[in-house]
Amino acid sequence: MSDFIYGHWAVMETLRANRRSFEQLLLTDKVEEKGLVAQILALAGEYGLHVRRVPRRIIDDLAHGANHQNVLLRTGPYPYVDFDDAFALAEQRGEKPFFLLLDLLKDPQNVGSLLRVADAVGVHGVVLQERRSVSITPAVVNASSGAVEHLNSIMVTNLVNAMRELKARDVWVVGLDIGPRIPPVDRTNLDMPLGLVLGSEGEGMRRLVRDSCDMLLSLPMRGHVESLNVATVGSIALYAAWQARGWQGWQPE
Amino acid sequence: MSDFIYGHWAVMETLRANRRSFEQLLLTDKVEEKGLVAQILALAGEYGLHVRRVPRRIIDDLAHGANHQNVLLRTGPYPYVDFDDAFALAEQRGEKPFFLLLDLLKDPQNVGSLLRVADAVGVHGVVLQERRSVSITPAVVNASSGAVEHLNSIMVTNLVNAMRELKARDVWVVGLDIGPRIPPVDRTNLDMPLGLVLGSEGEGMRRLVRDSCDMLLSLPMRGHVESLNVATVGSIALYAAWQARGWQGWQPE
Repeated sequence: MSDFIYGHWAVMETLRANRRSFEQLLLTDKVEEKGLVAQILALAGEYGLHVRRVPRRIIDDLAHGANHQNVLLRTGPYPYVDFDDAFALAEQRGEKPFFLLLDLLKDPQNVGSLLRVADAVGVHGVVLQERRSVSITPAVVNASSGAVEHLNSIMVTNLVNAMRELKARDVWVVGLDIGPRIPPVDRTNLDMPLGLVLGSEGEGMRRLVRDSCDMLLSLPMRGHVESLNVATVGSIALYAAWQARGWQGWQPE
Repeated sequence: MSDFIYGHWAVMETLRANRRSFEQLLLTDKVEEKGLVAQILALAGEYGLHVRRVPRRIIDDLAHGANHQNVLLRTGPYPYVDFDDAFALAEQRGEKPFFLLLDLLKDPQNVGSLLRVADAVGVHGVVLQERRSVSITPAVVNASSGAVEHLNSIMVTNLVNAMRELKARDVWVVGLDIGPRIPPVDRTNLDMPLGLVLGSEGEGMRRLVRDSCDMLLSLPMRGHVESLNVATVGSIALYAAWQARGWQGWQPE
């Protein structure tokens, strides 16, 4: 089945990453060919991609009413990879493995937002469980501004087994949790082979996932509201881990 | 003019904070009195607040179609404070002043999300400019899960003047920016009287705001996408600053 990627940045980064098969680029018949749209068309031209102008309502339908910004890219499926690819990337960069594991997250906006940050801090692999959670849908691609097209995403049937595999390969699996007696995120030096686990919206990690972690860390809070959005918590933890690695791989312009 | 606060947590925290005048609590005629709704009703009872059951479409209208979760609180205006109140809070807590300044942010979701984090890290005052930016609307209250009702928010006519006032009161005003030769956020010890400035979505800080900062810091990025959402960047910086203060005021359960 085809995917319909929508939105300027999502389409642009999908083309740039060039990891999917591309079938067709659709534009609404009134969109102007300037700015990002012009760049998208230039890249589509390089790839010899078929471009069609269609009435807006066709793109509205294919994007299920989402904010498509008049651009839609019809592609083959998202290119999931496996653990070996992620470890190979870490080795190629000469870095300690850095994974993000998502336990049954439901909201494409949260997942997209997290994966945009995962890309920004150089995560080597993102692990998602196949059932009962969001996969890399066009909504996730859009919410990540296309960043997920550059990431190694690994779809597993069982997250706990994936955690075991990471541990067997000398990765420390650290769960982010709230609760009494859980040390704050800066108490441990995160400059180690790391798999950071985030629980789902509202419910946190499942019991067995939590129990399978090597260690739990928390994000302190002192305000009046009891929790923060999982995308916020995860973003802060990802940056804390990258900071612990001394911003490895950062190339200030 | 009345404000119409909607959503479970927004209404709950508005009642708990108890800083506005309350006029009326509206519930849809079919909502069940359990969970948070029961807690809201209990608190409304304590305050002797007038509670009305109305058809759903009335609340739909008053919440302008937002996701109101069948609950709407009609209140007086948001209780803005002034700089003296914020400094007094810092002094009362025995802490170095900690401010967040928003330069023309436009998206209620971003502002709400940031203010939820500002509350979580114990910011003493949030500074917003009156014109051309979002004020504390019901959409912001909702997006902050009600956290903003507990915060000191200061509405100023001119952000640059507000920065001057903070500097005159020995607060270091630090702008978060991207660009060459800007040191990363952990290069400076943020355990100082601090005003953290965030620029607007897409455009960043205005020139004059940027030039009025004592110092600029950046959030490193190494991925393929050129920027992160301002709420994400601001949340990470707020936590970096609180971490530098040794999680001051944190009371692990």
